[in-house]
Amino acid sequence: MFQVSFRFEKGEDRNIFAAENENLLEVARKANVAIDAPCSGNGSCGKCKVRLVEGELDSPRTRHISEEDYAAGWRLSCNSRVVSDVVVEVPDIASAYKSRMKTADLSTGEEVRIFNAAEESVREAGISFTNDFVSAVIAMDEPTLDDTMPDNERLERALMAELEVEFVSIPHSVLVHLPSTLRENSFRVRCCGKRDGDRFQLMTVSAPDDATPMCGVAIDIGTTTVTAVLTDLATGKLLAKGSAGNGQIRYGADVINRIIESSRPGGKKRLQDAIVKETLQPLLRAMYQDANISEERVLSICVAANTTMNHLFVGTDADPVRTEPYIPAFFRWNDLKARDVRLPANSEAGVILAPNIGSYVGGDITAGTLMSMIWNTDELSLFIDLGTNGEIVFGNRDFLMSCACSAGPAFEGGDISCGMRATDGAIEACTIDRETMEPSFSIIGEAGQKPIGLCGSGIIDVIAELFRCGIISAKGQFVREGRRVSQDANGFDCYVLAFADESETGRNVTINTVDIDNFIRAKGAIFSAICTLLKSLDMDVSCVEHMYVAGGIGSGINMRNSVRIGMFPDIELDRFSYIGNSSLNGAYAMVMSDQARDKVEELAQSMTYVELSTTPGYMDEFMAACFLPHTNAELFPSCAEME
Amino acid sequence: MFQVSFRFEKGEDRNIFAAENENLLEVARKANVAIDAPCSGNGSCGKCKVRLVEGELDSPRTRHISEEDYAAGWRLSCNSRVVSDVVVEVPDIASAYKSRMKTADLSTGEEVRIFNAAEESVREAGISFTNDFVSAVIAMDEPTLDDTMPDNERLERALMAELEVEFVSIPHSVLVHLPSTLRENSFRVRCCGKRDGDRFQLMTVSAPDDATPMCGVAIDIGTTTVTAVLTDLATGKLLAKGSAGNGQIRYGADVINRIIESSRPGGKKRLQDAIVKETLQPLLRAMYQDANISEERVLSICVAANTTMNHLFVGTDADPVRTEPYIPAFFRWNDLKARDVRLPANSEAGVILAPNIGSYVGGDITAGTLMSMIWNTDELSLFIDLGTNGEIVFGNRDFLMSCACSAGPAFEGGDISCGMRATDGAIEACTIDRETMEPSFSIIGEAGQKPIGLCGSGIIDVIAELFRCGIISAKGQFVREGRRVSQDANGFDCYVLAFADESETGRNVTINTVDIDNFIRAKGAIFSAICTLLKSLDMDVSCVEHMYVAGGIGSGINMRNSVRIGMFPDIELDRFSYIGNSSLNGAYAMVMSDQARDKVEELAQSMTYVELSTTPGYMDEFMAACFLPHTNAELFPSCAEME
Repeated sequence: MFQVSFRFEKGEDRNIFAAENENLLEVARKANVAIDAPCSGNGSCGKCKVRLVEGELDSPRTRHISEEDYAAGWRLSCNSRVVSDVVVEVPDIASAYKSRMKTADLSTGEEVRIFNAAEESVREAGISFTNDFVSAVIAMDEPTLDDTMPDNERLERALMAELEVEFVSIPHSVLVHLPSTLRENSFRVRCCGKRDGDRFQLMTVSAPDDATPMCGVAIDIGTTTVTAVLTDLATGKLLAKGSAGNGQIRYGADVINRIIESSRPGGKKRLQDAIVKETLQPLLRAMYQDANISEERVLSICVAANTTMNHLFVGTDADPVRTEPYIPAFFRWNDLKARDVRLPANSEAGVILAPNIGSYVGGDITAGTLMSMIWNTDELSLFIDLGTNGEIVFGNRDFLMSCACSAGPAFEGGDISCGMRATDGAIEACTIDRETMEPSFSIIGEAGQKPIGLCGSGIIDVIAELFRCGIISAKGQFVREGRRVSQDANGFDCYVLAFADESETGRNVTINTVDIDNFIRAKGAIFSAICTLLKSLDMDVSCVEHMYVAGGIGSGINMRNSVRIGMFPDIELDRFSYIGNSSLNGAYAMVMSDQARDKVEELAQSMTYVELSTTPGYMDEFMAACFLPHTNAELFPSCAEME
Repeated sequence: MFQVSFRFEKGEDRNIFAAENENLLEVARKANVAIDAPCSGNGSCGKCKVRLVEGELDSPRTRHISEEDYAAGWRLSCNSRVVSDVVVEVPDIASAYKSRMKTADLSTGEEVRIFNAAEESVREAGISFTNDFVSAVIAMDEPTLDDTMPDNERLERALMAELEVEFVSIPHSVLVHLPSTLRENSFRVRCCGKRDGDRFQLMTVSAPDDATPMCGVAIDIGTTTVTAVLTDLATGKLLAKGSAGNGQIRYGADVINRIIESSRPGGKKRLQDAIVKETLQPLLRAMYQDANISEERVLSICVAANTTMNHLFVGTDADPVRTEPYIPAFFRWNDLKARDVRLPANSEAGVILAPNIGSYVGGDITAGTLMSMIWNTDELSLFIDLGTNGEIVFGNRDFLMSCACSAGPAFEGGDISCGMRATDGAIEACTIDRETMEPSFSIIGEAGQKPIGLCGSGIIDVIAELFRCGIISAKGQFVREGRRVSQDANGFDCYVLAFADESETGRNVTINTVDIDNFIRAKGAIFSAICTLLKSLDMDVSCVEHMYVAGGIGSGINMRNSVRIGMFPDIELDRFSYIGNSSLNGAYAMVMSDQARDKVEELAQSMTYVELSTTPGYMDEFMAACFLPHTNAELFPSCAEME
């Protein structure tokens, strides 16, 4: 056994014992040290760099580490084996990929306004925001020596009369406190629960003047980020909102790597623990605390997530999803309880899963489609949710077609040498002066924050600007020279956004030809998916009348630049709408409204899924889209007009 | 803090730290040292004697400890406070009251024979032993690129077709393994679950040739002893049987003391843990291991227990049961799941509670009444379950009346100076020579076992024989002199069953006037309950045509002696039937047979409950019954004929 000490730029060392030849990334995971490995540790992404300070690691140099850096101690955790006691330094950048849990401040009203607007358009389409949850004060006769009916029967009969139901279920969680609650309140109590036809499922019993709301939770489990809201089931009022990085990120940035990891021994549990124990439990508890409610008051939960995330969340085998013939364990499944997946909630709370419709088009998209409102218009509309996977729905009130493509982690800063998530220090927007080639950018964080890296929206801007300024060619090759066009430590041509003395880390912030190539393939995947989907209908991009862009990744997105690089169809800018986190908003609608839930089920049933990987012509479309903006420049007339 | 060391006659010392002035009995409970305190530590029973070996205890002498014994270090744990480091010796007798967990050997066929006989009489009355659990092999088409239905839907459709149901619920516990189970078995699997009208609740999915039975568990939770059987739900075959002392015993021998303890802070959890975690979980797991089945194969559990035991098992407030107007939380309650009470079983397994009908007539009696068969005869029959509480049902096919009386722990050796449970060293039967006054007895245990004390059946015999031999009067006073009539260490008149050199403990085994008085009150409670119940119908004991005696306590009972002491009505001996553990047999019938369950519900609905404590005349009947055999000798004509 050797001792491994992890040293951080901020915070205390963490020490753990490791076996001889144990993989350093695995050791870090055991020690709960966050080192991002978007590629799941196969050596391809180069994100898991650490610096060896003392001792020895068996660790070959790879293309991600220059000779100079190797000499300075830099190693990839994923291909390092422990062969002595070691001290390794974990740089901030190694875990910048992982966003922190935070709850939102609702006092400004901004968050609430966004929700209300989304809800309003759904309401206008005739979907009422009502549900089957009931809160009622029930008064009973107090028992006497002549009226000795047991407590449960007394309450059941009173509920049957008051709610006009024929059956009442009293769960164990209520019965254990029932005698004392009835007596402390002189047999007049508030009962909350769920009506289901002629049945009533009692869920809580409390004092008659108890003003705690009946709560619902809506959760968007993104591959990268998890977002959730707590809401009052009676009024729809937002009570808390929170977000956190998906704890599974350390097992891979994309769904494929996570499925592979989940298929290893103990993997299902590891992946489920990462999302449930590490991510959702603390997030929900923090939200409940913000709103000052106990978990027994959470009566319903809706989860919108892609098919893989649903499988890993539930803890079932996901491997058949990724291997031919691509069969998931479920699309729709209505028997899940919060307790089954250890979510903090009432013992009887159910978990509504927004329905999946294909291996790679899941509940996030069916729920999001509801909010896009494309099903309620004559306009031929394109709804795209831009995340680690790009999911696309095209149609109108008459039909809906959908497909998914793997954009990879580039939009979230993965596969990009200085890429990072949209957190403090990330360049989120950029312009470049055509003359001087000098950049100006805005950086996430407080005033004076120096750049650490580039997040997705920043990358779109940088590439669009490099292309507009003639610094790179349509193929992404550097074609101008100047102070900021240089070579990075690995010998690749690059553009320097910030020199070492201008950056937070004391190292250059750059974008190199490999990064640009990776990004072009990502945007090419999106655009070719759009084209292929349209072609399957004998249509082309000129048919698109409106485009709705959703996704956490999309919030800072510059639509003009997105068109300029050939990611989105070249339609008028006022035809683009950014609709925020449609998955979360859809989950909110589903937990609040039984009609919304029915509508999503209906949309899912009617949606046709096109599997791109088996569609002829997709690869050709993809190859053609791997240029700036496209090999067929006629598709992007507005780019020709660029000044 | 002081260190307390418990030293045992057998086994290693147990050490624990205690606060100054902490109660020694509480300290023992924390250290998991079994010291019986049938009176729940109020100083009345004298059972919790320990011997101080080193150090000091603040502990006054009580009537339970002679001066000589006090000088030798004997103390009552319940009134001792720790004031220094101490070593105390815990004698075997202090925990003899607690019976050990054991599983039965079914290979001899004897246990099976008893069950079959009980079941047979119920079957003969037209109650079929069938239930809604189904096991079926389901074959599906394997998915292809052209047939991409998800696993759950594929299985649901196949089950709907095969079982002709309209809805199928697939629980989380099944879904998590469904993809791998289906693929490992080429989409041909064995499905087990429960049919409920047009619904099917799936519970397990396994290989098609899996021969593991679908299992049910029947449990009798007695105040003193817990007994359980594991059975094959399809065939009724007994797979395992086990018994254990009810772990709650250390909180009091009778239901009242347990309710009082449960009402103290943290008490509900303590009492529930004692029965669930300490008693049922290890007992059931041992049985599952005997039968080599995993807990997910246990699909249904039935519990028969008195009203208090039901409440403490479920973990709800029992205090209203014992205080006016005596209202239980439930009589019937059909929503309990095994997981609610942490019983090892399938995640969807329900717990059937045999219905209670009054504060002191519970599911053990309603289930037992089914097995007594008194509801299927014209004979006016008396069914009595003789335990810590005595419960009585009187009637025939036309009516059923019931009541309960508190006999106290005397039948189980409580409240008797040398009393003990029916375990090794207990005198279980006794005769006394009228001339010499010398006793002969049979002792539980291997050949050569010396006596330690007296169990219930032994006490009945000793008192009947002392009375028959004219050694004690009808009031229980000693009226003859002789070698064996003496005074015990506390100065009470007593009869010496075994002198110090004849006993296992090296101390006299005696029965004194206080013991006899306690016992006469216990048998008086039983007989006067019978009389009062009959009187409420304008009947008397001469109307009783048959008497069915049940209860673990009753197994070694001598019916003639029970009549001689005036506990049972003086009817012909061939009119008595001992029917064993009718509560357990009834629970077995209920878990195996839906019709038996309905019949018990029907019996419970039709049974009239008479609350003795509020019935005028009961106290007079009781006073009159506190003689040997009775103040009214005419009630016991056969006693007059005693030689």
